[in-house]
Amino acid sequence: MNGLMMQQSLLISSLLTHAERHHGEQLIVSRRVEGDLHRYTFRDMAERARRGANALAGLGVQAGDRVGTVAWNGYRHMELYYSASGSGAVLHTLNPRLHPEQLAWIVGHAEDKVLCFDLTFLPLIEAVAAKLASVKHFVLMTDRAHMPAASKIANLLCYEELLEAASPDYDWPQLDEQSAASLCYTSGTTGNPKGALYSQRSTVLHSFAVALPDALNCSARDVILPVVPMFHVNAWGLPYAACLTGSRLVFPGPALDGKSLHDLFESEGVTVSAGVPTVWQGLLAHMEAHGLSFSTMRRTVIGGSACPPSMMSAFQQRFGVQVLHAWGMTEMSPLGTVCQLKRQHEGLAQAAQEAVQAKQGRPVFGVDMKVVGEDGAELPRDGRSAGELLVRGPWVIQRYFKDEGGDPLVYADGQGWFPTGDVATLDADGFMQITDRSKDVIKSGGEWIGSIDLENIAMAHPAVAMAACIGVAHPKWDERPLLVVVKKPGAELTADALLQFYEGKIAKWWTPDDVVFVEAIPLGATGKMQKNKLREQFARQLSN
Amino acid sequence: MNGLMMQQSLLISSLLTHAERHHGEQLIVSRRVEGDLHRYTFRDMAERARRGANALAGLGVQAGDRVGTVAWNGYRHMELYYSASGSGAVLHTLNPRLHPEQLAWIVGHAEDKVLCFDLTFLPLIEAVAAKLASVKHFVLMTDRAHMPAASKIANLLCYEELLEAASPDYDWPQLDEQSAASLCYTSGTTGNPKGALYSQRSTVLHSFAVALPDALNCSARDVILPVVPMFHVNAWGLPYAACLTGSRLVFPGPALDGKSLHDLFESEGVTVSAGVPTVWQGLLAHMEAHGLSFSTMRRTVIGGSACPPSMMSAFQQRFGVQVLHAWGMTEMSPLGTVCQLKRQHEGLAQAAQEAVQAKQGRPVFGVDMKVVGEDGAELPRDGRSAGELLVRGPWVIQRYFKDEGGDPLVYADGQGWFPTGDVATLDADGFMQITDRSKDVIKSGGEWIGSIDLENIAMAHPAVAMAACIGVAHPKWDERPLLVVVKKPGAELTADALLQFYEGKIAKWWTPDDVVFVEAIPLGATGKMQKNKLREQFARQLSN
Repeated sequence: MNGLMMQQSLLISSLLTHAERHHGEQLIVSRRVEGDLHRYTFRDMAERARRGANALAGLGVQAGDRVGTVAWNGYRHMELYYSASGSGAVLHTLNPRLHPEQLAWIVGHAEDKVLCFDLTFLPLIEAVAAKLASVKHFVLMTDRAHMPAASKIANLLCYEELLEAASPDYDWPQLDEQSAASLCYTSGTTGNPKGALYSQRSTVLHSFAVALPDALNCSARDVILPVVPMFHVNAWGLPYAACLTGSRLVFPGPALDGKSLHDLFESEGVTVSAGVPTVWQGLLAHMEAHGLSFSTMRRTVIGGSACPPSMMSAFQQRFGVQVLHAWGMTEMSPLGTVCQLKRQHEGLAQAAQEAVQAKQGRPVFGVDMKVVGEDGAELPRDGRSAGELLVRGPWVIQRYFKDEGGDPLVYADGQGWFPTGDVATLDADGFMQITDRSKDVIKSGGEWIGSIDLENIAMAHPAVAMAACIGVAHPKWDERPLLVVVKKPGAELTADALLQFYEGKIAKWWTPDDVVFVEAIPLGATGKMQKNKLREQFARQLSN
Repeated sequence: MNGLMMQQSLLISSLLTHAERHHGEQLIVSRRVEGDLHRYTFRDMAERARRGANALAGLGVQAGDRVGTVAWNGYRHMELYYSASGSGAVLHTLNPRLHPEQLAWIVGHAEDKVLCFDLTFLPLIEAVAAKLASVKHFVLMTDRAHMPAASKIANLLCYEELLEAASPDYDWPQLDEQSAASLCYTSGTTGNPKGALYSQRSTVLHSFAVALPDALNCSARDVILPVVPMFHVNAWGLPYAACLTGSRLVFPGPALDGKSLHDLFESEGVTVSAGVPTVWQGLLAHMEAHGLSFSTMRRTVIGGSACPPSMMSAFQQRFGVQVLHAWGMTEMSPLGTVCQLKRQHEGLAQAAQEAVQAKQGRPVFGVDMKVVGEDGAELPRDGRSAGELLVRGPWVIQRYFKDEGGDPLVYADGQGWFPTGDVATLDADGFMQITDRSKDVIKSGGEWIGSIDLENIAMAHPAVAMAACIGVAHPKWDERPLLVVVKKPGAELTADALLQFYEGKIAKWWTPDDVVFVEAIPLGATGKMQKNKLREQFARQLSN
């Protein structure tokens, strides 16, 4: 017997309609690539998204067709989130930091029919346009005044002209909620990138989860500045959650340096932000160098990589901004866990609270997880037993786009689980802590050493700007940890001094065997340290 | 083209599994009908719900069978929420305040196969048991020690014995998310009650909405005491939302008087509560009479009937507890709107904020609404145009159980809308305000007079305990407002003095024509004033 409630699809267009009807006057503020600040309301955005849907239809885009974007965080990108996905097309966000060859490969694999891009990326797209056989229309996301006099791209279209010519009347279609809505490729360090194809349903469910009080806690009283790019797993879902909750949005455009961000936080009264640790380093360094503080910021979400405890302390103790440590993956839409304290932690001293906050947090409802040993058997939820982290849920991937790589799941208890490639512990209170990527784990004398712990200790040293710990081959122990360190500008530090800094903080045999100082640690397109490159570079360091 | 995320049903059992895994140590505290306080954890609850699922199967309950409950808010009732709905049966909560004949009629209409009830209700059920032909098993929700030596009910079963005999091992079935999960009958003032049949999907989606920051704002740091009964639209979804968020639950059992509630708020550190205005009146009167305050309470949700502004001020200004005015219906699972302020209201003075808070609030995402005129055309969202309120959404009713009453929807723009029977305004910021029930609206000289406004003014008078405003026939104006008033104990008040109190507060022609003082206003089974009875009683008041 079925229930008798309305059969209504969970649709991305309903997020927009909700925002337009109940938060029509709410603002979206965007730093444009042209340099100025642009302001308009959700009502304006909704009208332009309807024009955009008509414009896409005019370009021959049909249900299921991919619409690629290469763009910063801004209002035009937001409009495409809704005009493409709302009309039944598939929004495909591309990471402009990828190598042009890889970008072209992904566009081809996705078979993008239309490609929309910011002015910044015109040279990039011009350089690869000839290789983009699937793309029927190139759209520059600017107005007539900023269109180039000439372009290597024939028939380059102007986004604002397309909108102007399109009707503002458009009825969002009543799609099947299982319909594909958006596509993000993982930045695989080995092999070709693979696409995660989100559905209307998975996106709406994920939006509910993102907004919850113990997740990113979004309300109509918040001003949210997503530093995390809209080309990186849909800015962790914030462009959707903001419509669900009526939060004001502030988009930083291309200006992600510490000064630009701090200025925008202050001038727009931002209350919540979200980004990866490397971005926050730039912001904190700028604020410390100039003796600045925050006026309105209440909390920031840090994910993408583990948040170093020293960064957490800086935000919380020096600047009075609560850090929400979070964890997710492209394959998870991305939200998996957020580290919000429980009632029993409220009375603890700050140091004890931060020990809890160093964990990646508790699963939001909808995501289930377990850790398994090398034999696949579930490990106890005791906060100590580390194993591969498996996840499942309605916004977790089932297959990659075009079935690349075959079935990614592992099966247990009659259910499919996605293997995250992370090594983690779970505790009885539901808190998960990543100890390593499984490919980064250091196996020494038959035991595992967690590289993240070793990096966090190094990062707590006042002279260290960035640290990576990698395993290098060792004749007796198989592998031993090597620390690769970038010093802060002007700081003095020796390998011995840094290794002494580990004393008493960790089991003696975990202490790195050596330290090498470098100018920079290579970062991938999403800001993560590329340890595989370090492993290649320092493969023989210890045996020298 | 479909998305490629996991196909996972939204199931009530997954709420329980989430709570057990990630909030296993969280407490559920219950005032028992036996008088004492019972404490256990979500982990304990989950184990007993699994035993309960086995026990129900042992009684022959199959998927879709109805399991009736007549019970207070307590842990055994909570277990049945999950053991019944989680296993694919339909939980059917019955209101013990109904007339026994009506209760028997509803059990028969629902065809309840098992009926579980608290010790309090043994005489009630014994009195009607012979009429309950569908019921194969009667289960008294108590332990062996409290079972009666003899009962008029043959083979009366003991809940605790059933659990003890059942295995704690049970795999929650992977149901279709459209499966029926629970059943609530409306307390229709005319005709027979009709059943709203919720699905697994509608319940889980509603739980997400309930927990949102701008709805009831539930987190793992909250201690929630639902005063609203679990037999009244599933206690507004709190028994589900608490599992989703890991909030502590405190159940008051049958002790709903002011003293019992205040004692429990204080002893258990309650942070959030929810109930109808009539319950809060008792609590506030007790607190004022004894000079009490709240130590931990942060907010209370008031719904079921409009919250009088005087009650809101008392909570907020005298006791420092935020009032969340809310509105919903049995046919809406029930949540429709919650009155959480927006950013632009944050700087307002308290009186100006309370003018906003007097409205029923903004729709939670998922619920769409509009007001229409008598011709069915949509009225502007201007905060002034009042019309019938229509709603739609994935937790809004499509048909009543057994198709009673036929198709309840009205159709516009190709979509079905549920007509709420409420008269309301909507404003540009999304705030809805009920001005009347459409059957209570007073039509005077071709214009509408909102009875709720008139009642709120009367309630603000210090001598008034309760007020109802009804339309009575008038030879010239068709109808004119009559005020029916219960004075506070010992208070002195004349009709003239009360009518003078309206001066300057409202258009002169809205002022009631007369006042009658009564000992009590009849309340329905869910605590709402029964104005239809007053209209019968005072039909000729003005012409006398």
